[in-house]
Amino acid sequence: MKTIRVNTARPYDIQIGQGLLEQAGERCRAALPRAGKIAVVTDSTVAPLYLETVADSLRAAGFQVFCQTVPAGEGSKNTASLSALWESFMEFGLTRTDAVAALGGGMVGDLAGFAAATILRGIDYVQIPTTLLAQVDSSVGGKVAIDLQAGKNLAGAFWQPSLVLMDTDTLRTLPDRDFSSGMAEVIKYGCIADRAFFDFLTAHASREAILAEIESVLYTCCDIKRKVVEEDERDTGLRMILNFGHTVGHAYERMGNYETWTHGEAVAAGMCAAVQIGFGLGVSGGDDSGIQELMDLLEAFHLPTQIPLDTSEAWNAVVEAVGLDKKGTGDELTMIFLKRMGEALPVKQKKDSVLENLEAIYGR
Amino acid sequence: MKTIRVNTARPYDIQIGQGLLEQAGERCRAALPRAGKIAVVTDSTVAPLYLETVADSLRAAGFQVFCQTVPAGEGSKNTASLSALWESFMEFGLTRTDAVAALGGGMVGDLAGFAAATILRGIDYVQIPTTLLAQVDSSVGGKVAIDLQAGKNLAGAFWQPSLVLMDTDTLRTLPDRDFSSGMAEVIKYGCIADRAFFDFLTAHASREAILAEIESVLYTCCDIKRKVVEEDERDTGLRMILNFGHTVGHAYERMGNYETWTHGEAVAAGMCAAVQIGFGLGVSGGDDSGIQELMDLLEAFHLPTQIPLDTSEAWNAVVEAVGLDKKGTGDELTMIFLKRMGEALPVKQKKDSVLENLEAIYGR
Repeated sequence: MKTIRVNTARPYDIQIGQGLLEQAGERCRAALPRAGKIAVVTDSTVAPLYLETVADSLRAAGFQVFCQTVPAGEGSKNTASLSALWESFMEFGLTRTDAVAALGGGMVGDLAGFAAATILRGIDYVQIPTTLLAQVDSSVGGKVAIDLQAGKNLAGAFWQPSLVLMDTDTLRTLPDRDFSSGMAEVIKYGCIADRAFFDFLTAHASREAILAEIESVLYTCCDIKRKVVEEDERDTGLRMILNFGHTVGHAYERMGNYETWTHGEAVAAGMCAAVQIGFGLGVSGGDDSGIQELMDLLEAFHLPTQIPLDTSEAWNAVVEAVGLDKKGTGDELTMIFLKRMGEALPVKQKKDSVLENLEAIYGR
Repeated sequence: MKTIRVNTARPYDIQIGQGLLEQAGERCRAALPRAGKIAVVTDSTVAPLYLETVADSLRAAGFQVFCQTVPAGEGSKNTASLSALWESFMEFGLTRTDAVAALGGGMVGDLAGFAAATILRGIDYVQIPTTLLAQVDSSVGGKVAIDLQAGKNLAGAFWQPSLVLMDTDTLRTLPDRDFSSGMAEVIKYGCIADRAFFDFLTAHASREAILAEIESVLYTCCDIKRKVVEEDERDTGLRMILNFGHTVGHAYERMGNYETWTHGEAVAAGMCAAVQIGFGLGVSGGDDSGIQELMDLLEAFHLPTQIPLDTSEAWNAVVEAVGLDKKGTGDELTMIFLKRMGEALPVKQKKDSVLENLEAIYGR
């Protein structure tokens, strides 16, 4: 097992290893010494797989446990689910010293984390991510949110967990498409911060090869994220490098109504767009944009390198989504390019200029 | 004009004086140098009185202004209004450097403040309280929230404003009942922290006398709250003395479905209950509980000193509400008593014991 200490204002541990779900109780007890009750939030996919294991372990550690299952899918990350969680927490009798556990993928972590951040003006919570995407991305860093009609993750909070518990065994039941989606974020860490890790991934470019080294892969990703989050807990500067591939990626996701493309697929194509736009603008450090090696690696994990935008509806949806980017102020946004493979470079851009470059890529 | 600097993690000023609404633009500009857009949230009572003045002043200071009016009354402080504000902020195109202004009473401040605390994971906001209750209580301290079906203020955040602007002229249009409701909180400050202020109020026991000294009354109340909030921004210790009269008061409010009794009326009777319970338990410092002088002062402002609980429905509602108290952990809660008039004394109590003492007062 590996442990990473994240030194945010409220420090917490990320624990990575096999069989941690069975030990959830004792591990949560150590991280939440005051809590008597714990509300476990999960979704309809994860509940039949892991809920009983986690709930039993929590009960054995002396917690009074309440379980709430929401329908699987991004559609549950909305105001109605948030409101239902708030009410159910109060029915369960949670007090300020009690806690919430988010068991599942990024949707569950974001929704349950935001509910924990706001119930009784904020109580403790633990993240128990069961997908690769949630393990390397959303469960670390304390960004929690729900989606609005206007876009993804638009209402939320910065609220650090008390513990992040990653059981690597959960990845064995993950469908291939979800595994690949997580790999997009794994590859992102190599692109923005660690050339050697990028090369390691290229040398282990299959699900089997990654799973054989999964503890170390998760450790590397989470440790990069830790460094970034410690320096910029509230996302006002450095942290935006984690957004590499996301400006255009979010637009792709939105364009497909969060159904056509997974988050990772959209980010994969978004990273390719970012590299190409950055090369076009001349912000890359050398003659080689790195686009080919990135595309090769993404393709090895069955990830798209370009998203078709062949209707004007699709194009207009992307234009609108770029305009809504949270990193933006007024008509500008900060977009993340690669100075070279392994080094991110944030550049403030006019939204119009991003769109013009995207037009060029798509030959519009 | 008087100014109080509140040194929380994000420091801000409370400005108190006549005619400040007309100067809202320049004052917000100074406090919000980065903001281009400002969303003004108000309610249907306040909008016809002051919205145009404030919006015009903001526009004159260079802000792009968007106004959103919610129906007056505690009923608007719910998930549906919060969700509607979130969506309207995004339609208005607010970005992370823009801001929200809450123009109105406590309901508007709590609702708009919580919306500001969570939209885009938190943007700046200013409080422009127009009622006495909001000026001395809810607009200062950064506690924002909405009500749930399970009770009042159960979902929310700690989110400090960038500026609190109190125009004393707004109190002249306040209905008598609302003025009295605010006086309950004014009197509370004397009870918990300032014997001389309590005596001052006794010597100025009419609306006219208070309004003649309003700047100094607001200053005294807000300065007491400032000291408490600076020491305990996140409400984990000292801040609970502000809760004097509120444990039982919230129960009264809830029992009357937030319609029968105003917040101030419920708190007035709640303070009397707290003093009597505390005297019964022997936590007061002397032979005199102070109950008579407190009742005299409350009555001078037409505030109730006891709330009838003559049906079992009423009694059961109070029992349930005490059980839900946010200050509680498990079967205990911390109740605020008076050691003597002018000095608060928090004492941890079994919820059952609070209810037993309440039974005794009501002769049940």
